[in-house]
Amino acid sequence: MTKIEGIFTPTVVLLDDQGEINEGELRRYIDWLIDNGIYGLYPNGSSGEFTRFTADERLRIAKITIEQADGRVPVLAGAAEANIRETLAACETYCEYGATAVAIVSPFYYSLGSESVYENFKEIAINSPIDITLYNIPMFASPIDVPTIQRLSELDRVIGIKDSSGDITSMMNMIRAVRPNRPDFVFLNGWEAALVPMLLMGCDGGTNALSGLVPDYFRRMYEATRAGDIPTAQQMQFDLIGLFETIINPFEFPMGVRAAISQRGFKIGNSRQPMGEQQRNRSEKILDTMAPHLAAMGYSNLEEFCV
Amino acid sequence: MTKIEGIFTPTVVLLDDQGEINEGELRRYIDWLIDNGIYGLYPNGSSGEFTRFTADERLRIAKITIEQADGRVPVLAGAAEANIRETLAACETYCEYGATAVAIVSPFYYSLGSESVYENFKEIAINSPIDITLYNIPMFASPIDVPTIQRLSELDRVIGIKDSSGDITSMMNMIRAVRPNRPDFVFLNGWEAALVPMLLMGCDGGTNALSGLVPDYFRRMYEATRAGDIPTAQQMQFDLIGLFETIINPFEFPMGVRAAISQRGFKIGNSRQPMGEQQRNRSEKILDTMAPHLAAMGYSNLEEFCV
Amino acid sequence: MTKIEGIFTPTVVLLDDQGEINEGELRRYIDWLIDNGIYGLYPNGSSGEFTRFTADERLRIAKITIEQADGRVPVLAGAAEANIRETLAACETYCEYGATAVAIVSPFYYSLGSESVYENFKEIAINSPIDITLYNIPMFASPIDVPTIQRLSELDRVIGIKDSSGDITSMMNMIRAVRPNRPDFVFLNGWEAALVPMLLMGCDGGTNALSGLVPDYFRRMYEATRAGDIPTAQQMQFDLIGLFETIINPFEFPMGVRAAISQRGFKIGNSRQPMGEQQRNRSEKILDTMAPHLAAMGYSNLEEFCV
Amino acid sequence: MTKIEGIFTPTVVLLDDQGEINEGELRRYIDWLIDNGIYGLYPNGSSGEFTRFTADERLRIAKITIEQADGRVPVLAGAAEANIRETLAACETYCEYGATAVAIVSPFYYSLGSESVYENFKEIAINSPIDITLYNIPMFASPIDVPTIQRLSELDRVIGIKDSSGDITSMMNMIRAVRPNRPDFVFLNGWEAALVPMLLMGCDGGTNALSGLVPDYFRRMYEATRAGDIPTAQQMQFDLIGLFETIINPFEFPMGVRAAISQRGFKIGNSRQPMGEQQRNRSEKILDTMAPHLAAMGYSNLEEFCV
Repeated sequence: MTKIEGIFTPTVVLLDDQGEINEGELRRYIDWLIDNGIYGLYPNGSSGEFTRFTADERLRIAKITIEQADGRVPVLAGAAEANIRETLAACETYCEYGATAVAIVSPFYYSLGSESVYENFKEIAINSPIDITLYNIPMFASPIDVPTIQRLSELDRVIGIKDSSGDITSMMNMIRAVRPNRPDFVFLNGWEAALVPMLLMGCDGGTNALSGLVPDYFRRMYEATRAGDIPTAQQMQFDLIGLFETIINPFEFPMGVRAAISQRGFKIGNSRQPMGEQQRNRSEKILDTMAPHLAAMGYSNLEEFCV
Repeated sequence: MTKIEGIFTPTVVLLDDQGEINEGELRRYIDWLIDNGIYGLYPNGSSGEFTRFTADERLRIAKITIEQADGRVPVLAGAAEANIRETLAACETYCEYGATAVAIVSPFYYSLGSESVYENFKEIAINSPIDITLYNIPMFASPIDVPTIQRLSELDRVIGIKDSSGDITSMMNMIRAVRPNRPDFVFLNGWEAALVPMLLMGCDGGTNALSGLVPDYFRRMYEATRAGDIPTAQQMQFDLIGLFETIINPFEFPMGVRAAISQRGFKIGNSRQPMGEQQRNRSEKILDTMAPHLAAMGYSNLEEFCV
Repeated sequence: MTKIEGIFTPTVVLLDDQGEINEGELRRYIDWLIDNGIYGLYPNGSSGEFTRFTADERLRIAKITIEQADGRVPVLAGAAEANIRETLAACETYCEYGATAVAIVSPFYYSLGSESVYENFKEIAINSPIDITLYNIPMFASPIDVPTIQRLSELDRVIGIKDSSGDITSMMNMIRAVRPNRPDFVFLNGWEAALVPMLLMGCDGGTNALSGLVPDYFRRMYEATRAGDIPTAQQMQFDLIGLFETIINPFEFPMGVRAAISQRGFKIGNSRQPMGEQQRNRSEKILDTMAPHLAAMGYSNLEEFCV
Repeated sequence: MTKIEGIFTPTVVLLDDQGEINEGELRRYIDWLIDNGIYGLYPNGSSGEFTRFTADERLRIAKITIEQADGRVPVLAGAAEANIRETLAACETYCEYGATAVAIVSPFYYSLGSESVYENFKEIAINSPIDITLYNIPMFASPIDVPTIQRLSELDRVIGIKDSSGDITSMMNMIRAVRPNRPDFVFLNGWEAALVPMLLMGCDGGTNALSGLVPDYFRRMYEATRAGDIPTAQQMQFDLIGLFETIINPFEFPMGVRAAISQRGFKIGNSRQPMGEQQRNRSEKILDTMAPHLAAMGYSNLEEFCV
């Protein structure tokens, strides 16, 4: 079985001028990510704006990703749908497609408590034909707290969690609670601004949007951390935060990520969420604001950066 | 044109034992609401758990509701879909079905700022074949702030707002900002625990989940307020808060509302969001906890209440 | 016994050029408030920046206020001190000074839960020689929730609550919980942007910072509400919100209130909390930003306004 | 000059049966902390309940601490007072007493923005006769954001910051912003549940309430981290979180810390904030709830622990 570890890219969806999935460009982008050292792919996550596509489109995005990865790297396919029945149907389809596992975000819109979050994931886990990683992103969806993680880790199909809270105490608490009984349980960090310390304190990897922009940087930072080279890892993390501040904070997620990736020579198209004039202006200037941070990270040749 | 005012019921979806829409029972429920004096219907809102149905099911729920209302009362159909194109398709279908207007919740999952909220609604409004009411529910979706409402009220298709914030200062601010230029703009309150003061300060009506349980009470309370009988309206509001506290707070919305309505003799079925044991227990005892509040509200004969 | 009702002004502290209490000007200001129809005075509240004075200065501010009011209007003296023993000492002194009652803010800095808030006020209440009104201001201090109010209302010395939450449902809940057993309990609203609806739903009055700027307006708005003239009361409330938005939101409380009052011809001096350049600029332009709102409220002659 | 680094204990105040400062016991406690390896002392912080003492008492607490430390370890004396003038007077007194530096919490009660926070600290810094560390504790006081830290670090008297936010991204951002121009600037972490990762990412030490309970453990954990022994540091951090969860979360800070320290054989007395019955019960059972966590940390002999 493929162990899920290292850096997974939560992929954005490349669209054409009509707002349709640009399959050719998406396949080219996936190849580029793999060629640049990414450890795995994660379609239909928050970076992939899963809520802005139809159920059929989500299937297609996952299919393209799994086909194109073609076993070179594992694929964690986002499978959250309107309700449990639809989610299970997606799990079955992704299993047939050959996904490594699925990732399921906690229920959103309604803000659910621990009991409902548990029941929701339990019902999915005992019926799913494929392994599941939970996705905790409290700024957008019902939180998955430590006791709930612990209970859910008793189910075989639940093999890990992606946590995007950025809260290192909470992450350590999850690891403390789960590892003794499930040493194989996977902890992935989804907040790149705290990736290195999270790895140092026990995470197995990260699913980080910016790895879709600078995949090789993430591989080197991950390897430096794993090698125990803390000064290098710390400096790389600090420099990454500089970039993070220019791409994440001034935009509504994942608009800055999309704008940045479009600078690397991919036709990304417009998100289905329309932007206003101020946002468009900020978006068009993103290369300028990124430039000093990219230089600090070793990408000083912008022509080379913008292939 | 039908003026939207008075109390609209955001309807729950009655399900059968297999979790499918129970069309016959839903039609019977709609008749009962109309017979008991409700002013209008609002399917596919938060009470209607719109996010837990598929796009096709949402269409069917709206169709059944509009058909069954059959012009006796106006129908505001919830039309929020995955993206603007899908939302506009729903608007067209609801227009054909004969909806009075559609209601569209602000974008959710992602937390959007004013600029994006405006762009989103603007693009819908300039392309929709049917009138639109905005739906502001900041606890679940991106907030629609006062300047944004004001700008959106300049678009003809935008005819009103349902506000479920419960914040009376914010509501007065919206009215202050919009009424001078759009005296016809409709303000509906979606937080029944503040309905009477909101009506007194300028709202045209409410879309209140509990009106699906005690529609006649809401009609009388609304009429007392409109008649300027403040002592009666105040007392009715206070007693309603007592009921509200037993149905809304101890449950995850709209589970308490579903449990309560099932006591009125409707086969409501289980929500698609599974409940845990504690929640099921609380749910089963809801008649006991409601009883003293119902008595204060004039429903002292529980046998009659539970038809 | 003086019944506490109507509009109380939470007074600001007038300072001289050295930052010391300007006793003469403070006495002149108190006279002006009383002459302009205010119902009572409330020194050492949030408007009075009680935390920025020493314990001795707070005593002096209360003394001056009580002396100058001289029985013409009741005085609610803010008595919150570092701990219970110091608070009780202040209660005794204020009782000797002739205060009508004291007002005590819930513990702050630490965020305390219901049990501690109750114990804190209980210990004060059973030892105080003077009546106490509780002061609930959840944005600055530990919240006083409805069950806690209900329990505290069983103590004779606790005679009322000033609530600055602006949450009308919470306020109605407090009244519902307390009035049946304590029909004399006083509810004062501390959020002027919701004063009229709060009065309509059962409040006895308000303690509103802006009444220190336009005391006569507050008297007329209060009287219109009490007389059941809802159209007038509503319009006055709406216009007041316009003023509120220019004085409260752009500043850190109570800096805008201080800047505004200084325009009425009182030497108010600089707050002990230094302002930055942007804030000073905004402060200096406050008359311009207030002007259209003042005009709507009937103060169109600014020369007359700025006596 | 003494470099401020390592673990500082924010000391609690030991009280006698009358609620007065128990000077003898406080001196004995300070000796015990120093004998058990603590690097420095921090009186009049949040653990020291500085807001519950009078200005005179705060002076006395600082004096006792400095005298008793007697140069064996540095003392950071909390100097926040009602306003800037009073704060500066405290700074002068603490300077005379021989404090190493003072620590000043950001303004509280009122929630101030960056501009006011800056002006406040600037005015203190340019007038203080003694070095200042800023104290950022956003759950209780106005936040000190990264640009504000950066600007304040340009003032010579500002030598460091204690950050109790627990937010590792924010902490790394502070270090990134300040270190290039002020390599000597001191970063102390005030959230022990994230101490090891904060040290790994650049903090110079911590001011941690639980170090007042197990000072030797903190010294060993700090030394393991500094020595680059990450497996040991990680395990010690994980075990410490277990203890943290039983002492901090179930209580209102710092009540659990006080209860725990009282178990080590010190007469700590009752806090001036009265507790309710539930809290007293929880407090009395704290040794039982701590026991398994203490055992994991190497304190399995409870008789020895409770000297």
